[in-house]
Amino acid sequence: MRMLAAVMYQQGLPTPFAESQPFKIEEVDLEGPVEGEVLVQVMAAGLCHSDLSQVAGLRKRACPVVGGHEGAGIVREVGRGVSRLKVGDHVVMSGAPGCGQCGYCGDDRPNLCETVGVSRAAGTLGTGNRKLSRNGQPINHYSGISSFAEYAVLTPDTLIKVDNDIPLSVAALYGCGVVTGAGAAFNTARVRPGQTVAVIGLGGVGLSAVMAAKIAGASEIIGIDLLDDKFPLALELGCTRTINARNPDVLQFVLDHTRGGVDYVFEVTGNKNAMATAFAITRKGGDVICIGLGAAGATLEYPHTNLVGMQKGLRGTFMGGGNAVGDIQRYVRFYKEGRMPVDKLVSGSMSFDQLNANLDALDRGSVLRQVLLPHG
Amino acid sequence: MRMLAAVMYQQGLPTPFAESQPFKIEEVDLEGPVEGEVLVQVMAAGLCHSDLSQVAGLRKRACPVVGGHEGAGIVREVGRGVSRLKVGDHVVMSGAPGCGQCGYCGDDRPNLCETVGVSRAAGTLGTGNRKLSRNGQPINHYSGISSFAEYAVLTPDTLIKVDNDIPLSVAALYGCGVVTGAGAAFNTARVRPGQTVAVIGLGGVGLSAVMAAKIAGASEIIGIDLLDDKFPLALELGCTRTINARNPDVLQFVLDHTRGGVDYVFEVTGNKNAMATAFAITRKGGDVICIGLGAAGATLEYPHTNLVGMQKGLRGTFMGGGNAVGDIQRYVRFYKEGRMPVDKLVSGSMSFDQLNANLDALDRGSVLRQVLLPHG
Repeated sequence: MRMLAAVMYQQGLPTPFAESQPFKIEEVDLEGPVEGEVLVQVMAAGLCHSDLSQVAGLRKRACPVVGGHEGAGIVREVGRGVSRLKVGDHVVMSGAPGCGQCGYCGDDRPNLCETVGVSRAAGTLGTGNRKLSRNGQPINHYSGISSFAEYAVLTPDTLIKVDNDIPLSVAALYGCGVVTGAGAAFNTARVRPGQTVAVIGLGGVGLSAVMAAKIAGASEIIGIDLLDDKFPLALELGCTRTINARNPDVLQFVLDHTRGGVDYVFEVTGNKNAMATAFAITRKGGDVICIGLGAAGATLEYPHTNLVGMQKGLRGTFMGGGNAVGDIQRYVRFYKEGRMPVDKLVSGSMSFDQLNANLDALDRGSVLRQVLLPHG
Repeated sequence: MRMLAAVMYQQGLPTPFAESQPFKIEEVDLEGPVEGEVLVQVMAAGLCHSDLSQVAGLRKRACPVVGGHEGAGIVREVGRGVSRLKVGDHVVMSGAPGCGQCGYCGDDRPNLCETVGVSRAAGTLGTGNRKLSRNGQPINHYSGISSFAEYAVLTPDTLIKVDNDIPLSVAALYGCGVVTGAGAAFNTARVRPGQTVAVIGLGGVGLSAVMAAKIAGASEIIGIDLLDDKFPLALELGCTRTINARNPDVLQFVLDHTRGGVDYVFEVTGNKNAMATAFAITRKGGDVICIGLGAAGATLEYPHTNLVGMQKGLRGTFMGGGNAVGDIQRYVRFYKEGRMPVDKLVSGSMSFDQLNANLDALDRGSVLRQVLLPHG
């Protein structure tokens, strides 16, 4: 099949991306699904900060590659041996699948799956295949998803069936942003009623952590960001108060509204200064839940004596730290019950030709979560 | 009452301590117990690496002070209002009590007790009193214990009643070293059967972690230390294998005997290089359990992207991270059942006049746990 897709040939092109055009919108060839593969018509794909990191080259990726690592669509064809999905199913594409067979999957930690890591680094699907090409030259898959395209072939473990009554433009956010932020609160921190939290970085991931902390019964949810215009929505979604990260009194502000700091800080930026703030505002016995990856190879500092004597923790979480299948289905229920209004995270939609310009908007923080609609 | 005690007048005296004599063995006055206090005859007091840190001045302490923060003895007199203990009871003195009333105690985290922290910094008992003096000049208490003395007055929360059939020279180690190391494995890591661990620093605390990991069913317990002569006892107490920390192949050695690293590293030194090793040999999804305090104010580094992407954690633990009362009573049962041979940690005993020289021996790593016997 021939289809439109957003192809990146090299990482590290300069801003503004509207000019350097890291994604070329081109016709590419997509092979149909063989055994253990599924063809999905991509109805919506989220644009995420990790896409910015990919474009900037903060982490090396095999190129050329079709971008996109979260999305939702409709199953159009299933290969032999795929029994769990059928044509017409609505599915979320998730970058946190698991092979179900390795040591980590067997230990209920599928987001650490060893098999997936290997195929991701190689730019293939979990089957080892590359289904994408242009003029006979193979093109890599991005995180086994490549949702910046009209269609995608994926392995069934990356596809989570969801009810047909959730809009696919909303469902598109679940595969990465929502599962990452909400899972950090539900699975990694396991926030309990009455506890206090802070969230540093109020984008789609951070706001998902805010919504989850509210559902979990947190009594104080402090939102922290460099941009004041993120605060109205943060307050609407669950923050009890907000403060600008540049305010020199952030620590005192947190102390004024908590008992010696918060139980959990969700740090979404991976930025060095933000991490220092996060450690400082965590109370004795509390944890910094580290979500933001930051630049590859960056080393950060922390005061070791405080970590030990105050029994603080720095805990990394990735893709929500749980089982994406059960997590996403649970979060879809929360959405339908009105408890997790993920639709509020969608700040707008775009067509292929606006993709590069929207990278700039995301970089400036002037948009939250833009959704690509490949079929308009 | 007049009695013999080891008094430190200033921190930071140079090595060798046998010459600089940081502890002066002197007659001091001890007031009897008032309401909410207990007089204990100290039968044994452990000498611990934290005593070295205190002498070296790595963390400031109020001086003059009678040293010693772990010990065991016999109750000789109880003040009014003390109902839990009676004359003749055998007790362990623990530096990890809790007031039972503050937010942390109410949250089952007594080792983070706020009240205790205040009195410790002030050099008083939890009652706010100083019971020690010399020539009318008040002397401070160390961690509410001050067990380097013939007698001590303490608050009941620092005293844990133990059966009379455990030797007091063994029980003396429970209050700090044993509860810290074993609690790190049982409470903070919660090691499960079949998991793999490494312990960096095979002193009394590290070997307590080794014994606990073995009881918890760990299938691989790798001991790491700078001194090869620590290894025979480590292997006897539960290590499955050992390697010298200076060996350049430590990482490969761990990878050869585990599935991609260990689930938990217990890092007892607080040393920068040891912490880097600890982080490297932790497998995806695993934790470095940080026990060693290191120097006050020291900042350490870690690779942030690995922390997040590999879902590793750095978790501080202090005094075992649990409830010292229940913990110590449980560990005494394990000793009596032959499952936790704490007596093997006692490398020798000493009288007051050998205290300073034994600090040197501890500093060199040539002794494990020396026990002061104030009454010979």
